[in-house]
Amino acid sequence: MQAILKKNTAEGLTYVADVPLPRIQRSDEVLIRIQAAGICGTDVDIYRADAPMMKRMSKCVPVITGHEFCGIIEDIGPDVRGLKVGDYVSAEMHIVCGVCHNCRTGNGQWCLNTVIRGIDGDGIFADYVVLPARAVVPLPPDLPQEVAAFLDAIGNAVHTVRSVDVAAKDVAILGAGPMGIMAVSLCRLMGARRIFVTDVQNALLKTATDEGADGVFNVTDKAQHEEFVRVCHSDPRKHGVDVVLELSGHSAAYRDAFAAIRMGGEMSLLGLARGDVTVDFSTDVIFKGLTIRGIIGRKIFQTWIEMLALLQGPFLKTARKVVTHTFPLKDFQKGFDVKLKGEGLKVVLFPQAS
Amino acid sequence: MQAILKKNTAEGLTYVADVPLPRIQRSDEVLIRIQAAGICGTDVDIYRADAPMMKRMSKCVPVITGHEFCGIIEDIGPDVRGLKVGDYVSAEMHIVCGVCHNCRTGNGQWCLNTVIRGIDGDGIFADYVVLPARAVVPLPPDLPQEVAAFLDAIGNAVHTVRSVDVAAKDVAILGAGPMGIMAVSLCRLMGARRIFVTDVQNALLKTATDEGADGVFNVTDKAQHEEFVRVCHSDPRKHGVDVVLELSGHSAAYRDAFAAIRMGGEMSLLGLARGDVTVDFSTDVIFKGLTIRGIIGRKIFQTWIEMLALLQGPFLKTARKVVTHTFPLKDFQKGFDVKLKGEGLKVVLFPQAS
Amino acid sequence: MQAILKKNTAEGLTYVADVPLPRIQRSDEVLIRIQAAGICGTDVDIYRADAPMMKRMSKCVPVITGHEFCGIIEDIGPDVRGLKVGDYVSAEMHIVCGVCHNCRTGNGQWCLNTVIRGIDGDGIFADYVVLPARAVVPLPPDLPQEVAAFLDAIGNAVHTVRSVDVAAKDVAILGAGPMGIMAVSLCRLMGARRIFVTDVQNALLKTATDEGADGVFNVTDKAQHEEFVRVCHSDPRKHGVDVVLELSGHSAAYRDAFAAIRMGGEMSLLGLARGDVTVDFSTDVIFKGLTIRGIIGRKIFQTWIEMLALLQGPFLKTARKVVTHTFPLKDFQKGFDVKLKGEGLKVVLFPQAS
Amino acid sequence: MQAILKKNTAEGLTYVADVPLPRIQRSDEVLIRIQAAGICGTDVDIYRADAPMMKRMSKCVPVITGHEFCGIIEDIGPDVRGLKVGDYVSAEMHIVCGVCHNCRTGNGQWCLNTVIRGIDGDGIFADYVVLPARAVVPLPPDLPQEVAAFLDAIGNAVHTVRSVDVAAKDVAILGAGPMGIMAVSLCRLMGARRIFVTDVQNALLKTATDEGADGVFNVTDKAQHEEFVRVCHSDPRKHGVDVVLELSGHSAAYRDAFAAIRMGGEMSLLGLARGDVTVDFSTDVIFKGLTIRGIIGRKIFQTWIEMLALLQGPFLKTARKVVTHTFPLKDFQKGFDVKLKGEGLKVVLFPQAS
Repeated sequence: MQAILKKNTAEGLTYVADVPLPRIQRSDEVLIRIQAAGICGTDVDIYRADAPMMKRMSKCVPVITGHEFCGIIEDIGPDVRGLKVGDYVSAEMHIVCGVCHNCRTGNGQWCLNTVIRGIDGDGIFADYVVLPARAVVPLPPDLPQEVAAFLDAIGNAVHTVRSVDVAAKDVAILGAGPMGIMAVSLCRLMGARRIFVTDVQNALLKTATDEGADGVFNVTDKAQHEEFVRVCHSDPRKHGVDVVLELSGHSAAYRDAFAAIRMGGEMSLLGLARGDVTVDFSTDVIFKGLTIRGIIGRKIFQTWIEMLALLQGPFLKTARKVVTHTFPLKDFQKGFDVKLKGEGLKVVLFPQAS
Repeated sequence: MQAILKKNTAEGLTYVADVPLPRIQRSDEVLIRIQAAGICGTDVDIYRADAPMMKRMSKCVPVITGHEFCGIIEDIGPDVRGLKVGDYVSAEMHIVCGVCHNCRTGNGQWCLNTVIRGIDGDGIFADYVVLPARAVVPLPPDLPQEVAAFLDAIGNAVHTVRSVDVAAKDVAILGAGPMGIMAVSLCRLMGARRIFVTDVQNALLKTATDEGADGVFNVTDKAQHEEFVRVCHSDPRKHGVDVVLELSGHSAAYRDAFAAIRMGGEMSLLGLARGDVTVDFSTDVIFKGLTIRGIIGRKIFQTWIEMLALLQGPFLKTARKVVTHTFPLKDFQKGFDVKLKGEGLKVVLFPQAS
Repeated sequence: MQAILKKNTAEGLTYVADVPLPRIQRSDEVLIRIQAAGICGTDVDIYRADAPMMKRMSKCVPVITGHEFCGIIEDIGPDVRGLKVGDYVSAEMHIVCGVCHNCRTGNGQWCLNTVIRGIDGDGIFADYVVLPARAVVPLPPDLPQEVAAFLDAIGNAVHTVRSVDVAAKDVAILGAGPMGIMAVSLCRLMGARRIFVTDVQNALLKTATDEGADGVFNVTDKAQHEEFVRVCHSDPRKHGVDVVLELSGHSAAYRDAFAAIRMGGEMSLLGLARGDVTVDFSTDVIFKGLTIRGIIGRKIFQTWIEMLALLQGPFLKTARKVVTHTFPLKDFQKGFDVKLKGEGLKVVLFPQAS
Repeated sequence: MQAILKKNTAEGLTYVADVPLPRIQRSDEVLIRIQAAGICGTDVDIYRADAPMMKRMSKCVPVITGHEFCGIIEDIGPDVRGLKVGDYVSAEMHIVCGVCHNCRTGNGQWCLNTVIRGIDGDGIFADYVVLPARAVVPLPPDLPQEVAAFLDAIGNAVHTVRSVDVAAKDVAILGAGPMGIMAVSLCRLMGARRIFVTDVQNALLKTATDEGADGVFNVTDKAQHEEFVRVCHSDPRKHGVDVVLELSGHSAAYRDAFAAIRMGGEMSLLGLARGDVTVDFSTDVIFKGLTIRGIIGRKIFQTWIEMLALLQGPFLKTARKVVTHTFPLKDFQKGFDVKLKGEGLKVVLFPQAS
């Protein structure tokens, strides 16, 4: 079959036309034919040969990359329950151990032994993948393939927004990439009062406005930056937003986060900033009575259930809009070029297209 | 009446024998005769003329200091409900506005307009104080005065421990001063599984052991420091403690906090570290899925109700043990000398003693 | 001034043109000129001389009735903070003691000593009312009077829906009166997946559909009743709705509630059914792992803050639609006739109209 | 091997000396040699041929009964992770599907497809059992066998007490059987303020006092019954206990539950009362703002982790005390006779004893 491989720890990825087909080896596995696959920021890191990522992947290259996808079950092990050949599915590619305390208490997102397929083992930029049934998630038949192709990323956004109760709250969203755009829509759909968004690209901020943001601010502009802080403090009965969602992955955003939030506010962090951030915990966290949450992956499978429910409503429209580019799998380079140039939002690859 | 004043922003405090008696001026106020008063770390900062504190207090000196106390109501305004002359009481000296959103939702600890008596206005190192009735808390008659003298501080400890569910959990407590000692006892009384404590003074660590700590570690000793991290990771099914309580107020403790905690752990911060702390949020907070809470003051009055309930049980014994020194109010200097030398735990002053 | 009085415990209410103006008597009170007032189901009970209500009111008649309203502050006591003459306001008419444990922990809705104005003391079917400032809620200037006239009832609906996390959930709403209609809209606005509604009047069910219900069922029709239960069980991965909101106040609805809900579901009860309900707790509550919550009043003031936030968004449109009839205060009888006939949803009276 | 069988739906159980040994048939199964097994109230129902139970079991008799146990792994399927031959284990005998929404969100206690071993399939009153690895729980080596023999029941008690935050709360526990005795100890260990216990047997109430109850009441005695209600209301600032745990399984206890609880209280129900209970939801649930929770089984595996942690502390002593009788497995009749006479608390059987 065809597949996109990380052959070694050098920059770039390689299209290979004749990778051997994977086979079911355990009784609880399924074989899935890939229909569509999303390019994630992590995939771009892998392409770029990001140093910490290459350190991790040096143990498993060559490996098939990619971890966001949908497909059809083509074969099934004898012990699989609740799935059948022909099912339209996606999967949680954080393959968790099921044995550590976090797994055993319904918190697989914090598994001590997670293996990420597409990084630590073969992923889904390919025609086929074999996965353990317990990782597979059946999808509603009418969910569009281009959306089902990046449920993993949708789950990040849903997990972050759902980590706080946003109904009737003022929310500051830092970063208007795919995560930020989806977060705006989700906060709106869950009854947020006011939503303020920051980014450094006006085009993204425009999309945030289209999705329902009440105010958008390009923080490279000093006046807009000041206006952002001012508007966050515009309700004199709380003096700051109730909730901050950090989705930009820029360490500079932390200063805005602490400046925007009210006494007793809640901050959820998803974006992965490079390097250290300096914090005055006494002033900014303790005296303010903040709660700060690090968000990793998706709740397995609480978040999956929630996102599929939400995609049966108006959030589907947002998810579709986030897909700005599509290519056949073999033209993966075009897709990565889009991301490497910082253009567009989500790129989806189709193995069966030509 | 007698009182201890901060006369100006220079170092030291002054005993004055003939301060005018305060009078009830509003219909909802009460006059309280002070029976006993605790010296808080904040009082020591005031004595020492700590710079940020002096900046704050420059607006209100001269002022009567002190904010931890118990006493008897001697007079009462006409509109006061639920209190009467002769009641044995303490009070929440964070006088909150009652009007901001945080106050109106039962979160007075996050009031936007808090006035702290003993800092921003006259406190209780004196024979009498006048307070708004809404700040006053009736006490059970059998609560010993030397314990009732520092309910404010007890409330900090209770608030911190109660910010997390510690039952059946492993807990690391950083700092074994009065807060740490009380936290050990509270965690033990609320069903914690294992409690590990760090400090830099062996005498304090000894007391922590007496209160039920399963392991104590002097982090100035490299071997003990390493052993602390090792023991926190000794359960292979979770690899880290479930809960960290930072009570030391040392910025160096943050490194231990992040090293000790498991994936998905919860960290509550009460100690006020000077200056900035450097954090790698991606590695230490986001990938670990941590929740971090800043703890300020006491829940008004949830924490008061809880601490009074807990003091009806075995926690009382711990609270009594925390009082290591008592003096008449006029000998306040002896009390502050104890604290300035870093000796003992809690010092209590008695205005009516001689 | 004019006012509507319950003169004694007989049926009916009485319009009196020359009731003495109320006066501020305590330093923390405000005088409010009433602009608009809603007729609540409780007011209809008072009109009808409902037996338990008359037992309660026998101690305080004659009394001015009515408890849902908005108005303008015309005078203010000297100790009032955070309010001023000219402010547009409503008020929580459950006047709570502020002293019991529930009040002191931000749960005034469970106050042990609640006095309800309009029942236990003079209410607001009048030109003026005097109230303690701590019960008063400032309103945004642009909130329409006919909506501000029944925030009390809006708060019941918001409190009920907010007692459960409905985002991404299936919800059954029993009863499509004003509470049910608002609950449909609120569930929709907070991200519910599917909303099923039952009632006995087709006109109300039609309105529920307009507000976004996915299925409506007239339970007097056997086929529709069966279809309701069937559709609630139509998702084979959960077999029952996640949430039931009982808003009908009919004891017959409890059977539907238990039939509709899934294992581990959550049920919130607001409707006041007459008489006893028979429950097989083992089968229907324990084996199913249900959580059942009784909802009373509004969270003071969490719910007020939330509803005012929600009324700044699309929920305002629903609230306006709920007002089906308006009359001058002196024509109160016309308003009560509408309610007594079971027509319409919310009736609003205007004291200054003629 | 030897085993205790329910041969058909008639009364009684049968000891059979030569049942065929079970074998591992799937790659994810383990073979366990039973060391000790507890007799549960459900086993007594099975012995007595309780009608609803016989209806359920008619589909699977003859079947090996018993579901509370500990043992040693003797063999292991090739796909089992995290377990090995020689491990000291127990197991959750509610075998859950892992596929329904409740299972997939960490709420296996509400699984739609639970199969209970010992009822719906072969249990553990035998020398050996084969179980799926995912149901097995490794035990600390030093946990005494007679306690490890009834972790299932301990888990019921832990799950019930942990369904509410009891720290600093007043708690009424209805029923002082094994569940009630363990609940008293657990509430005490988790910081409850006052614990009041009711039952109909003085000997059980005596044990409750030994475990730390502040007041015990034989509700067959009218004066004690009245005193129970009075003492529950003895704190005038809350007028009722904060928490009621219904563990008696008597419908008469519901009246006491509603009489004892305060406004805004929380009630958890574990005892399985026969037949219907009549409730005035308006007066007793809605106006009081109650939360009522049905408790089924154990959280899988949150409760297991918690109970094993708690058994590493002083709760172990309580658990040991609950075991009042032990017999060799072949003398099962003696054990059931104890339970049928209503004597003792927990009876444990030992297959390898003679």
